[in-house]
Amino acid sequence: MINIVITAGGTVENIDEVRKITNTSTGKLGTHIYNEITQYFKKIKSNDFKIHYIVSATAVRPGVQSEDLDKVIFYGVTDTESVENTIIKIFEQYKINYFIHSMAISDFAVSNVIEIKQLAKEISGKIKDKEEKDISGIIEDIIKEPKNIMNQDKKISSTSEICLVLKKTPKIISLIKEKDKDVFLVGFKLLKNVTEFQLIEVANNLAEKNKCNLVLANDMKYFNQGKHIGLLIKDKTVIGRYEGKKDIAEGIVNNMFKSEGE
Amino acid sequence: MINIVITAGGTVENIDEVRKITNTSTGKLGTHIYNEITQYFKKIKSNDFKIHYIVSATAVRPGVQSEDLDKVIFYGVTDTESVENTIIKIFEQYKINYFIHSMAISDFAVSNVIEIKQLAKEISGKIKDKEEKDISGIIEDIIKEPKNIMNQDKKISSTSEICLVLKKTPKIISLIKEKDKDVFLVGFKLLKNVTEFQLIEVANNLAEKNKCNLVLANDMKYFNQGKHIGLLIKDKTVIGRYEGKKDIAEGIVNNMFKSEGE
Repeated sequence: MINIVITAGGTVENIDEVRKITNTSTGKLGTHIYNEITQYFKKIKSNDFKIHYIVSATAVRPGVQSEDLDKVIFYGVTDTESVENTIIKIFEQYKINYFIHSMAISDFAVSNVIEIKQLAKEISGKIKDKEEKDISGIIEDIIKEPKNIMNQDKKISSTSEICLVLKKTPKIISLIKEKDKDVFLVGFKLLKNVTEFQLIEVANNLAEKNKCNLVLANDMKYFNQGKHIGLLIKDKTVIGRYEGKKDIAEGIVNNMFKSEGE
Repeated sequence: MINIVITAGGTVENIDEVRKITNTSTGKLGTHIYNEITQYFKKIKSNDFKIHYIVSATAVRPGVQSEDLDKVIFYGVTDTESVENTIIKIFEQYKINYFIHSMAISDFAVSNVIEIKQLAKEISGKIKDKEEKDISGIIEDIIKEPKNIMNQDKKISSTSEICLVLKKTPKIISLIKEKDKDVFLVGFKLLKNVTEFQLIEVANNLAEKNKCNLVLANDMKYFNQGKHIGLLIKDKTVIGRYEGKKDIAEGIVNNMFKSEGE
């Protein structure tokens, strides 16, 4: 049995009960990758695979044909923490062979929400008796963890000016090879308005740091022009250049299974 | 010609090029209101109306039947500012009779994004020579308008801890009767986990402050239970209680046109 994980869409970090931080990811590329994988297995006349599809609530999901219903498990996720927990659970239960990490994971979660007036008061109160040299560090610590924070479980009142303090989320992609060093990992890098040289360099860094077998690198500047150009990179070499999400997905899946056969 | 404005969905405030603050609104209620209005005019055998549908990019749009294509104009909007500009333009061009403001407008826009380290430095630098009594006010002013802010036109780097300073957006609903005191205005109030007495009181305040002819008040606690209960309020009196978006829309539209005939 070949177990494949696809992550798709974008994470959602809650600010409060109704407000949230999202990103522009739609999850469409994930649906194309799903389609290409199921077509690949039909082509080689194999039924011996399972797709674990980790998808955010707002993302589009692939259309699953009735004969494939037992081939796919959907895992709905919301924030980065829920993605992390889902991945950990999947690795506990299955021996994963391929991991295609196309989801746009938030780099930041909301650490706290505080009224600007309260934050200023807190800083002012704390620094009164301090020597000048450590003031900046003390202020930084207060901003990171102020005391008079607002309740994010409710809808935050709009009567006062507020400030959102963000914290970094764990890097999900670094988790994959830690969980299983033999998994075939496809990473994604999206930048904007960079040269192709820069794009490849950043993609190589991502690959090196997280031991990606393939990286799909793309530049947002092409999205606005209605075309989606993707470079597929393996061992620091561009092995494919594709236009449009379908072709990108086909390129990834072909090269993924080609590598397997080598 | 009867001109009707419907606003639907939720506004999106950009944090940077890829990240944004959104809310949970889907725009579905707006589509039901659209349907009820077109059905009403079919019932009274009138073609003499136009619907101006102001809708956020992520919201669902109503399905428009081919014979109604010339009866509706869609105005795509993103952030609160774009909603305001669109409403001003519509009022310049048309004599509006009804305004159904079901859109969830963000109370906050992102004023600036700053590294926590930078903000702390800036505060620390400014307060050195100040007398103790005005420190809190000075800090507040710095947080609201710090100097070393990050460029929100690009994707903000995730290498440092950051802080989002929010500012209040203009109240869109107060604009409507300022533009035309004769327009029939339907406002919406969504709260969570309040008593019905509290809900009605807050709705009455909204109506009074913005001169709403009708207010639809609802409590999010019912959403999770899979039912959407809405109270329709006119002149501080509950004149209708509905369950489900379709019934709510029907109640609003019936009472809207009933009031007209009085």
